[in-house]
Amino acid sequence: MELLHQKIKQEGVVLEGGVLKVDTFLNHQVDARLMFEIGQTFGELFAESGVTKIMTIESSGIAPAVMTSLQLQVPMIFARKRKSLTLREDLYTERIYSYTKQEESEVTVSRKFLTPADRVLIIDDFLANGEAALGMARIALQAGAEVAGIGIVIEKSFQPGRGKLLEQGFRVESLARIASLEDGEVTFV
Amino acid sequence: MELLHQKIKQEGVVLEGGVLKVDTFLNHQVDARLMFEIGQTFGELFAESGVTKIMTIESSGIAPAVMTSLQLQVPMIFARKRKSLTLREDLYTERIYSYTKQEESEVTVSRKFLTPADRVLIIDDFLANGEAALGMARIALQAGAEVAGIGIVIEKSFQPGRGKLLEQGFRVESLARIASLEDGEVTFV
Repeated sequence: MELLHQKIKQEGVVLEGGVLKVDTFLNHQVDARLMFEIGQTFGELFAESGVTKIMTIESSGIAPAVMTSLQLQVPMIFARKRKSLTLREDLYTERIYSYTKQEESEVTVSRKFLTPADRVLIIDDFLANGEAALGMARIALQAGAEVAGIGIVIEKSFQPGRGKLLEQGFRVESLARIASLEDGEVTFV
Repeated sequence: MELLHQKIKQEGVVLEGGVLKVDTFLNHQVDARLMFEIGQTFGELFAESGVTKIMTIESSGIAPAVMTSLQLQVPMIFARKRKSLTLREDLYTERIYSYTKQEESEVTVSRKFLTPADRVLIIDDFLANGEAALGMARIALQAGAEVAGIGIVIEKSFQPGRGKLLEQGFRVESLARIASLEDGEVTFV
């Protein structure tokens, strides 16, 4: 996606430890027009995939996911993130480890929103180690649903996430694939 | 908003303590088409208000806020919620008390996204006691910005939030105003 590549080049800030900060248009301030185009692009990529639900995790996944949901005309669910939680029977729960934050959180989805008849499109803002996407996929599989695909806004292709997802047979579509952040410079694949 | 009223009537669940659960279309599962129409409605209501920024709080405010942002063609910022935080100079911070969750959280916005030149439209999913909206307004005022208005998806008009906001001179536009949830029944104003 050309517009997304431009935004990353112009506004992305490379921090230590391979972190790319894009808080001017995705993670804190949000460019709604860009999100709309991201939704259109995912909508086209997964138009023939029989998607019945979009799933993301709060908070940064919500804007691209709701725009994709608008295009595909199916409901979006955002999984809730919590530090710890008493087990509740009405929830699907998975633990997700964040390398960036170095903490584990529990992610939950209400059982009533996922059924074995669902084909779930997982949308997320970043793919790095793949923990969040894999956690969402496990929730879909817990529900007996199928994973129709995984749509990522920004993929750090130098980290193992994409490989792990492909290994499990998932289709992965990333709108920007970053080969390297070395020397504070963004290089696309 | 007729469509919103219908959704609340059909899918809203009244819980104890005056809680209205709308997790089928707003707080967990999200109806993107409805969010788009909500964005259009806020866009029309505030078209002449000189809005330069939309502000909301993660997570449930993000979907209606990004759709409003799309209509008004100005950036959206979602304030981050955290349980506790070391003071950081690059952030505006306000404490917000949630009566529903009975806990206080700190809400932060990066200083670089708000300036005295801004006219901020605050968007939120619910208005009850007004704590969240007032907290966001205080952040805007900390930045020297003006509050152009407050747009609420669902207002519990039997709670004091609206009154508090009007008292401070803010314009409040709520798309659904609930007069009562007594006997498990939703009654609109």
